[in-house]
Amino acid sequence: MELEELTELAQQLRADAVRASDAAGSGHPTSSMSAADIAAVLLAHHLRYDFDRPDHPSNDRLVLSKGHASPLLYALYRAAGAIDEDELLTYRTLGSRLEGHPTPRLPWVDVATGSLGQGLPVAVGMALAGQRLDRLPYRVYVLSGDSEMAEGSVWEAVEHAAYNHLDNLTLVVDVNRLGQRGPTRHEHDLDAYARRLHAFGWHVVEVDGHDVRAVDAAFAEARSTTRQPTAILARTHKGRGVEAVEDREGLHGKPLPDAGTAIAELGGVRNIRVRVQAPPDGEPPAVPRDTEPELPRFDTGDEVATRTAYGHALEAVGSARGRVVALDAEVSDSTRTEFFAKAHPDRYFECYIAEQQLVAAAVGLAARGYVPYASTFAAFLTRAHDFIRMAAVSRAGINLVGSHAGVAIGPDGPSQMGLEDLAMLRSVHGSTVLYPCDANQTARLVAAMADLDGIRYLRTTRGDLPVLYGPDEEFPVGGSKVLRRHDGDKVTIVAAGVTVHEALKAADVLERDGIPVRVVDLYSVKPVDADTLNEAAAQTGCLLTVEDHHPEGGLGDAVAEVFSDGRPAPRMARLAVRNMPTSASPQEQLHAAGIDAESIAAAVKLLVERVVA
Amino acid sequence: MELEELTELAQQLRADAVRASDAAGSGHPTSSMSAADIAAVLLAHHLRYDFDRPDHPSNDRLVLSKGHASPLLYALYRAAGAIDEDELLTYRTLGSRLEGHPTPRLPWVDVATGSLGQGLPVAVGMALAGQRLDRLPYRVYVLSGDSEMAEGSVWEAVEHAAYNHLDNLTLVVDVNRLGQRGPTRHEHDLDAYARRLHAFGWHVVEVDGHDVRAVDAAFAEARSTTRQPTAILARTHKGRGVEAVEDREGLHGKPLPDAGTAIAELGGVRNIRVRVQAPPDGEPPAVPRDTEPELPRFDTGDEVATRTAYGHALEAVGSARGRVVALDAEVSDSTRTEFFAKAHPDRYFECYIAEQQLVAAAVGLAARGYVPYASTFAAFLTRAHDFIRMAAVSRAGINLVGSHAGVAIGPDGPSQMGLEDLAMLRSVHGSTVLYPCDANQTARLVAAMADLDGIRYLRTTRGDLPVLYGPDEEFPVGGSKVLRRHDGDKVTIVAAGVTVHEALKAADVLERDGIPVRVVDLYSVKPVDADTLNEAAAQTGCLLTVEDHHPEGGLGDAVAEVFSDGRPAPRMARLAVRNMPTSASPQEQLHAAGIDAESIAAAVKLLVERVVA
Repeated sequence: MELEELTELAQQLRADAVRASDAAGSGHPTSSMSAADIAAVLLAHHLRYDFDRPDHPSNDRLVLSKGHASPLLYALYRAAGAIDEDELLTYRTLGSRLEGHPTPRLPWVDVATGSLGQGLPVAVGMALAGQRLDRLPYRVYVLSGDSEMAEGSVWEAVEHAAYNHLDNLTLVVDVNRLGQRGPTRHEHDLDAYARRLHAFGWHVVEVDGHDVRAVDAAFAEARSTTRQPTAILARTHKGRGVEAVEDREGLHGKPLPDAGTAIAELGGVRNIRVRVQAPPDGEPPAVPRDTEPELPRFDTGDEVATRTAYGHALEAVGSARGRVVALDAEVSDSTRTEFFAKAHPDRYFECYIAEQQLVAAAVGLAARGYVPYASTFAAFLTRAHDFIRMAAVSRAGINLVGSHAGVAIGPDGPSQMGLEDLAMLRSVHGSTVLYPCDANQTARLVAAMADLDGIRYLRTTRGDLPVLYGPDEEFPVGGSKVLRRHDGDKVTIVAAGVTVHEALKAADVLERDGIPVRVVDLYSVKPVDADTLNEAAAQTGCLLTVEDHHPEGGLGDAVAEVFSDGRPAPRMARLAVRNMPTSASPQEQLHAAGIDAESIAAAVKLLVERVVA
Repeated sequence: MELEELTELAQQLRADAVRASDAAGSGHPTSSMSAADIAAVLLAHHLRYDFDRPDHPSNDRLVLSKGHASPLLYALYRAAGAIDEDELLTYRTLGSRLEGHPTPRLPWVDVATGSLGQGLPVAVGMALAGQRLDRLPYRVYVLSGDSEMAEGSVWEAVEHAAYNHLDNLTLVVDVNRLGQRGPTRHEHDLDAYARRLHAFGWHVVEVDGHDVRAVDAAFAEARSTTRQPTAILARTHKGRGVEAVEDREGLHGKPLPDAGTAIAELGGVRNIRVRVQAPPDGEPPAVPRDTEPELPRFDTGDEVATRTAYGHALEAVGSARGRVVALDAEVSDSTRTEFFAKAHPDRYFECYIAEQQLVAAAVGLAARGYVPYASTFAAFLTRAHDFIRMAAVSRAGINLVGSHAGVAIGPDGPSQMGLEDLAMLRSVHGSTVLYPCDANQTARLVAAMADLDGIRYLRTTRGDLPVLYGPDEEFPVGGSKVLRRHDGDKVTIVAAGVTVHEALKAADVLERDGIPVRVVDLYSVKPVDADTLNEAAAQTGCLLTVEDHHPEGGLGDAVAEVFSDGRPAPRMARLAVRNMPTSASPQEQLHAAGIDAESIAAAVKLLVERVVA
């Protein structure tokens, strides 16, 4: 396309953004208009993409990190012929694929955006896939706002990209000077961004973002730069092209006041159709057909930490399935992903202590068809909560594994204890939450989670725990195990992970005292085994949940939810970590929190007495 | 102290760290030993601190961001005479104040550490207090590890500190080259860190961290540097001073293999006592005595968004109480903190789009005695989950306000909707969770939350909602309001926020249909009003919760928890957001999620039919 046509195309994108937002009565036209020249040049001259085949392995990827500029993206899709005029004007309406912020309901959107500062970290995951796994020449383009450069997650990604020499990654920062509520920190000081990016090892190009020739040259420079990712810093004006709104404050996230005049000023409605370059032929290296993993087998009675079982199982799953990858945040000796790292170094990604990048890279790898397992301490997964939340909106299939759950870790103290992780992961849309109590169970669940949809979470324990189950026992997701059952059980103890072992000890004591109790190992916290819990409720009339987690959002809530379906509910009680833990031995911790065998037995006795009374 | 004595002192600190960890059987002596020379110089020559008066307003502050090096901190306290030999050796045992990672159980610890990358962001809050509010010459020192420089939160803080010219802030990075599982990304490349910090506008000094003279000069240089924060990059060896462990991999987080020999190599047990310099006299500017805030008054029947009521109430609370401060993450026009910002610009802190820094700054300001209100979209508070979790360990008193809760925001789509915030905030130890449904209620709760302990969360709504309550109505934390009550109520609808209004509409319809229902406005989600819910359960036999939040961890779970005390539970059912929302109008969203009046009425009818059947 000639330069003049590019300028025309950019005006079309602007007008379409204005029209879509005007039809919707909401949206971000001004944030779209600043980046229209960039988008036009990218689409017409640089992007290689088959819109009829979004799963083409060599397609370039485009991540709109400034997701609020969705009208620009949708205008781009119209220019590429992927959507038509009518659909464009369904923007933000019920049933439309053109949501306020892009989601993968559109086949050309790999990941949802709209939480700022997430585009680049996720793109780093895609670029790593291109570089190390797919080994295909696709490029990953990120269009970012300037405000979002304040997010720490961006700098985790900047560091990670340069360290890994991701020359297939191009970040374009639309420096339009104005954030939501006023000027950004650095306004039009492009050098401020350039200094920072240079220091981290990036190649940087500063351009006038409305000069299509300069933008074109910048993209070409990015493509020819090797061993470094490139950042194109584009000086732009918010609302560019319409004098009434250009470079003015107070116009963020609003349709233009007079859309008709604005569209006329932009040259009216155009119908330029871009013939987007096709991606090159090419396939990623063939991956052997998946086989059944040869999971580690542990002998009942042995003492093995579930984190260790996780590490061995992950290694085995990695051997059986070539698309399984593992990531860790510099604690692989603790989480035990080191076993995978040693066995499959080509599919292991060290993310250093950057949990947002850890989860974002997993999302990016999942978007390229890999099956990631991302691990760190359960407590530190909270660092990536917003990325996990957005991963669900992205319909990403990722496995998260949090070790060192609960007070059972012992002397390190509360900063290292995952005590909110079950609440966090249960509340994620469509998630699965697994919490095994022994090594064989862990191994089975590690294998099973690979094939689930959505966000899958496995919670592991630091200390050694007795192996309760044989290696051939099966543990369906959504199931549970009844470990003790007698006629006339007075109470059902529902436990998971470390508290299963305490519950069993308590059951022994109680049985000696003439109080038979049922013990349920609720290893699948979400989905939960409603049938078994209903049966236990019907037969014992009383459920006591015991969890190494705060009382809110965890096992107790999961069990209570089963009985929130309008039927008469059983008596319920819960033991959980209600204190602020300090340093102590694991057994002292369990006792101080009131979730050890002694506390369970005492609670059961109180519950039984209450009925008798 | 002479240089030779400083070296002796450093050896004492090392030996004490080795001894404490050896006694405990766990801990991080090697990570303590690398920073011992730095700590010795700081304590003996630079820190101005009255250990008998930790609340002295002019005390310097020391934040041990590498919290795992707690043995070094405790050794420092012994050298300062703050703790004795016996207490040192209680390290990590039950009941000891000397926890595995430092917490404010020790009077000289302002904030808990142990989640890496949090020390500097919190210190920025303290330094802002010193610069802008206390206007006292105290300095804030942060001792950080090198691994944690990978955390994005560190770079949010680096940016924030330089932008605010925090020359009262000194960051020391103990570049010991070894992280937990092996070498760090940049190992001993101090220049790599220096380039990055320079680019963000810091003054940087590179030193041999074991050369006490050089370290001493670096601290002096930091103190004499104006208009810039200073970073001292100290090249050190992990395990310094004991040949068997110095600069070796695989020795992170473990007591030394042969402590006796190591202590001998370090010169044995010493009893050097440091006379720490006293802080200068000085008091912060006098703050007028708190008065009762003149809260905004809204007329019943008017339509006002609770976020708007929050903004006006916060402004009023700020007028009445001089220690109230407000922070926002560049969305103050949306959250409505802009009203406070305009009225009290001296006490308003713009954090730009950096939610971790937002919450960390609030924690730092709280540590200096201020009462912060930190606001952003509820969805984006998830970005700061780990900081909120650690704030609870820090016993920080902070107010968090999340706007744009739930699907009720309308067309922007799921990325902008807070649907997990209640779960996140409920699960925090000792938290308070408030969710008002009208403007007068909001105003009262905004004022009330200032005086609570711990983490206080207020959830606000984007759209206008009818004012239900008069301006003189009271709303105690832990209370609720019964909005509809009849003899013979068949069901109790428990709602909060936007769903209160849907519940009232449903109640009207149901009453016309001959089904009287009770409606409870459960504005205090934690603590929850057990008395009212128990009464409702006893009188109606059935509770239906309705929430604009995912089903897990929110209102439904909060109500269920009331009935998890071993007594027979009522019938319960819950309506919540179980779909993945898309774009649509607010009312379409409520309907699609099944939480609008129509859905509530239908659910009530089903519940009533079930009983009749």
